[in-house]
Amino acid sequence: MSDLVLTTYDWVPPPPRGLVRDLRVRWALEEAGLPYRVASTPFKDRQPEHFAHQPFGQIPWLTDGDMTVFESGAILLHLGEKSDRLMPADPSGRNEVKEWLFAALASVEAASQPWTLFRFMGEKEDTTAWKFFDDFLTLRLQRMEAVLAGGEWLVAGGFSVADILMADVLRAVDKFGGLAAYPACKAYVARATARPAFKKAYDDQMAHFAAAD
Amino acid sequence: MSDLVLTTYDWVPPPPRGLVRDLRVRWALEEAGLPYRVASTPFKDRQPEHFAHQPFGQIPWLTDGDMTVFESGAILLHLGEKSDRLMPADPSGRNEVKEWLFAALASVEAASQPWTLFRFMGEKEDTTAWKFFDDFLTLRLQRMEAVLAGGEWLVAGGFSVADILMADVLRAVDKFGGLAAYPACKAYVARATARPAFKKAYDDQMAHFAAAD
Repeated sequence: MSDLVLTTYDWVPPPPRGLVRDLRVRWALEEAGLPYRVASTPFKDRQPEHFAHQPFGQIPWLTDGDMTVFESGAILLHLGEKSDRLMPADPSGRNEVKEWLFAALASVEAASQPWTLFRFMGEKEDTTAWKFFDDFLTLRLQRMEAVLAGGEWLVAGGFSVADILMADVLRAVDKFGGLAAYPACKAYVARATARPAFKKAYDDQMAHFAAAD
Repeated sequence: MSDLVLTTYDWVPPPPRGLVRDLRVRWALEEAGLPYRVASTPFKDRQPEHFAHQPFGQIPWLTDGDMTVFESGAILLHLGEKSDRLMPADPSGRNEVKEWLFAALASVEAASQPWTLFRFMGEKEDTTAWKFFDDFLTLRLQRMEAVLAGGEWLVAGGFSVADILMADVLRAVDKFGGLAAYPACKAYVARATARPAFKKAYDDQMAHFAAAD
């Protein structure tokens, strides 16, 4: 039995499959070549033990020996500090990875999540709310386009956990056609998701949920 | 001249004053007793130099000697690693602080920001969008209520940068009356914002923007 255990739901409805956040962690573990196993927690009937590991009743969480880590950003930082394949060694590069981990969530996903939730719920494009959040996302994507036009990966030291998180966030926007006007963002998502570790993580997540149908 | 320089806008319109994100960083610097000075970047006419420090053209960023850090979450993590007044020493406590830094942004603010933006823009409460995001925030606040009913601060080791970030996020919800049904959340915000370091940070932000009117 491995020391690293990734916990995700036992099942989710089909629409979010392929976008559930355990994928970010699977991807990082595959990139690092760290052995791990996957455990399940009920999606439909969440127990006190679930909330003890993840206070919001969400997934994923990672158990590493006697330590448990929740929040995908914190898990990716933890794995980045564990594997030199996921974070450069120099202090400046490590600082950049941390900046971009937070930026992927607090600057980009903070704008893309309302937008993708609107897409999921079929919000009409003529409402004030849609226009506001569509403009909000546009501001962020225009800036990411400039950043990503400047290099293969976010940090000069090479592919890192920051790319896993940023590409996963932008991938959800791309799924709903939101990157059409942003060729550098689109190419970045294509580059990141062409990596064998992503494909393995994606296929494993799809198979995990399909097995519970 | 101090080695630590916090950069914020030179001016912002009155409505967001007291909620601008340099406050989180001022608060942490005051708690730690670290000497710093405040620099300004134009709000109205953002220059390439601004985007070089903060890729989204937002603020704050912190200069620490020859290193620059952007994203308020990354800055708070950086300061937590710099001062034992902002993060406990034991590995388990440090892990918890990192989890809650990410949770404050990716779980709580991800739900509270659409809600507060709706309040700012005067979204009507009978729209599908309002109801969806109000329910989304409710789910998060119900869980935070359970967490905060259990202790004075988020991490057993005592007040930390995680509390600065979480209290700052919840404070924005409270400003629009969103914590009325959550007494533990409300008491937590009151407890955090009663700290002298918060008051100093708040007054300094208000004075900084007022000086430019």
